[in-house]
Amino acid sequence: MEFRNGSALTPFFEPRDVAIVGSMKEGQGEGYGIIHNLLQFGFTGRIYPVSRSGGEILGLRAYSTVTELDGPVDLAVVVVPPAAVVDIVAQCGRKGIPAAIVVTEGFSETGPEGVRLQRHLVETARAGGVRLVGPNTLGVLNTANALITCSYPVAANKPPRGTAAYCSQTGLLAFGVHPIRDKAYPISKVCDLGNKCDVDETEMVRYLAKDHETKVITMHLEDIKDGPTFMEAAREAAAIKPVLVLKPGASAVGAKAVSSHTGSLAGENHVYESAFRQAGILRLRTWGDFWEVPKAMALQPLPRGNRIAIITATGGAGVLLADAASEEGLVPASFTPQTLARLEQLSPRMVRNPVDVGPLMAVLENPFSVYSKVVPWVLSDHNVDCAVIVCHTRPAIVDIFREMIPALTRMGKPVTIFGYGVDLAEMEESARQLQSLGLPTYFDLEMAVKALGAAAAYVRNRRRISHSGPEPPDSV
Amino acid sequence: MEFRNGSALTPFFEPRDVAIVGSMKEGQGEGYGIIHNLLQFGFTGRIYPVSRSGGEILGLRAYSTVTELDGPVDLAVVVVPPAAVVDIVAQCGRKGIPAAIVVTEGFSETGPEGVRLQRHLVETARAGGVRLVGPNTLGVLNTANALITCSYPVAANKPPRGTAAYCSQTGLLAFGVHPIRDKAYPISKVCDLGNKCDVDETEMVRYLAKDHETKVITMHLEDIKDGPTFMEAAREAAAIKPVLVLKPGASAVGAKAVSSHTGSLAGENHVYESAFRQAGILRLRTWGDFWEVPKAMALQPLPRGNRIAIITATGGAGVLLADAASEEGLVPASFTPQTLARLEQLSPRMVRNPVDVGPLMAVLENPFSVYSKVVPWVLSDHNVDCAVIVCHTRPAIVDIFREMIPALTRMGKPVTIFGYGVDLAEMEESARQLQSLGLPTYFDLEMAVKALGAAAAYVRNRRRISHSGPEPPDSV
Repeated sequence: MEFRNGSALTPFFEPRDVAIVGSMKEGQGEGYGIIHNLLQFGFTGRIYPVSRSGGEILGLRAYSTVTELDGPVDLAVVVVPPAAVVDIVAQCGRKGIPAAIVVTEGFSETGPEGVRLQRHLVETARAGGVRLVGPNTLGVLNTANALITCSYPVAANKPPRGTAAYCSQTGLLAFGVHPIRDKAYPISKVCDLGNKCDVDETEMVRYLAKDHETKVITMHLEDIKDGPTFMEAAREAAAIKPVLVLKPGASAVGAKAVSSHTGSLAGENHVYESAFRQAGILRLRTWGDFWEVPKAMALQPLPRGNRIAIITATGGAGVLLADAASEEGLVPASFTPQTLARLEQLSPRMVRNPVDVGPLMAVLENPFSVYSKVVPWVLSDHNVDCAVIVCHTRPAIVDIFREMIPALTRMGKPVTIFGYGVDLAEMEESARQLQSLGLPTYFDLEMAVKALGAAAAYVRNRRRISHSGPEPPDSV
Repeated sequence: MEFRNGSALTPFFEPRDVAIVGSMKEGQGEGYGIIHNLLQFGFTGRIYPVSRSGGEILGLRAYSTVTELDGPVDLAVVVVPPAAVVDIVAQCGRKGIPAAIVVTEGFSETGPEGVRLQRHLVETARAGGVRLVGPNTLGVLNTANALITCSYPVAANKPPRGTAAYCSQTGLLAFGVHPIRDKAYPISKVCDLGNKCDVDETEMVRYLAKDHETKVITMHLEDIKDGPTFMEAAREAAAIKPVLVLKPGASAVGAKAVSSHTGSLAGENHVYESAFRQAGILRLRTWGDFWEVPKAMALQPLPRGNRIAIITATGGAGVLLADAASEEGLVPASFTPQTLARLEQLSPRMVRNPVDVGPLMAVLENPFSVYSKVVPWVLSDHNVDCAVIVCHTRPAIVDIFREMIPALTRMGKPVTIFGYGVDLAEMEESARQLQSLGLPTYFDLEMAVKALGAAAAYVRNRRRISHSGPEPPDSV
């Protein structure tokens, strides 16, 4: 079967037709759960429920076996008990289905018997020409065609279509149990690799490197099956777009816990550290980094250098952001005389970086209007590569930024927002709106700067690796 | 005038009667804003509006001058233009008002003229026997008597009464622009010190050390006026309760920004680092630490040692938490044979730390019931000093924990929760309920462990400093 970009992984993300094989018990069966989610998300392809009982599921004709399916199917999602999985995958092979996601748990992660069962599964799939994601996985999410293979009650959790791809080894870092819609993460694709019995991180990073929907690749890898091959693939990917990796198991305890979780070995931390650096991979340190750092790269352009402007409505935040910027390898931009003159015209107390717009706001009829002037002035300064803006995240500020979008887009420099306020629901709704305008908004002060620092580090790494020449001309 | 604990700071937090001096223009004047907030919060004392126009403000009789006030007043909140402040404070002195919070901006933070004005203010206050907080401050919040002196529209932002005191040098880290109610921070008192022309961090830490409402003191200090004296006062406070300090200005840029913000000097970072250690102060690193770390110490008992149990519904979180625990100086508890036997009875795959309850939950009729067994088993293990619990934060889990509270209280060991879910509003509401039960709940994975690590570090420091003997018997 031919797929658009010629990758064996294409049917996992862009199936025209998908078969769901599992229990269709209303409201309880995992097969039912997946179909419910697919329908709620609005999956653009055809859905074939497969369940021994046949009949009709959520308005769709159900088939009692894979063999009975009456059309070509690109992807099977298998969520039957462990003992039945091998047989279903064999049937997929006979039916010419090129890809199967095995959601079912109870394989190598459970001990020697599970390891044997998993080996049998892999042999059967190979013999039948079926590629596998999993087992022990929530599978995939593709916001472009609304494909979702998770059975959890996440129907209301569809995020906006975006350009950040996430590849993980656990549901917690995929989409199983995180409010990805409420936080408006700009997601292109997600894949929970599970036990990685076939499709692994190397194949995935190659696929995502070529994926036109994806601008930034973020991976959570408890283990790496073939280090050198992965690093080579990641290096090639990082030449095209940022590759960020959260690699737990840095501590001895963490490494032991990895083994209990997926039955794999975490590997030596210092070896990874150096290999990541050589491949131009940005290493993430925390669960929060995993979710929040990619946002800036997905929504905004990459910076040309590391000179940051801080525009803040509170002096206290300016100080903390200046510290954080220094921590993240960013340096304060020195504004040109023209910018300084413009700022002085508004208020002599604003003639510095961080620019504290707070005192001026306190005396203006429309306080937020100060951003409409100061933000374009500062970002058009040729000594500025990026900016973090501190503002009250409320509807009035969304309006101010909406009007600025064309100007900001023309300037082509990345911006993040650190938002504050006293009403959490209002803050979150305003953040969603700001992000729908393309403005990454953070409620964690340091994260707003860390995301810009990571983008600048990526650009610096790429120069270093591609030129293999001298260090880039960043300010230090 | 005599106050309960004999401190000159008592009238700032426990005034029986408070005068608000400023513009009472409806919906706009800052004096009006403060009175509105006091009434909405339900301040338990008497409120005297003072405004040239006199009349009636929000149902209260207004006085046209301080001199006219017809009763004894403990505290004046001054929010008149800078040029008028000195005169008002002089009137306070003549009237015998012992304390004034000068909210007004435009003093030492604005330049030489402001410095002169501030000096004049201090001299006037001293001459009249008036103690000052500020200028350039949002003032104080006391959840016990619902005193608030902030004029911002924060009437809906009253947090629950608690035991964490916050003392800061900026409104961002006080209560001006943070959703302290929606996040249910368990706050006792807050004070924004502003320019610290009189009352400073040293006096404040002494006051809070003696305050029976306060279990943990958290301070944000851009500068420290008299290092040795503060360190001595903080050391004495830390012998009684945890003292946590966020000291920005660690970077050169940050230090320069401090000077622009409050006109003070940040000081040498490495000097502070060592002084904090000697005083037994825990140093906080980020804005998030400032808000989130104290929660665990305010709501939970202190741990006896640093041996942590991790109870998780997702294996992936267990790995990340094990890494984070190691980073924070915690070590994995080795369960006793009795605990291991109990866990084995439920599931052979749970016989380890981290305890992964996920696979068992997947097959239980009532999945959350597993916590009711495992949490008390693990916490009653004498090899366990503290625990982090990973769970879906939803109403059903709140019910499970509500029933466990008596047992957890008996055990007297600190617990934090890392919560997950797909619906942010539901997560936040459940977190508020869990915190009202006394269970600190985090949506930032590493923070749930950092808070326990800080508590264990405090206990270790206190032993080290009070005994000046050998290091404590923690596992390493």
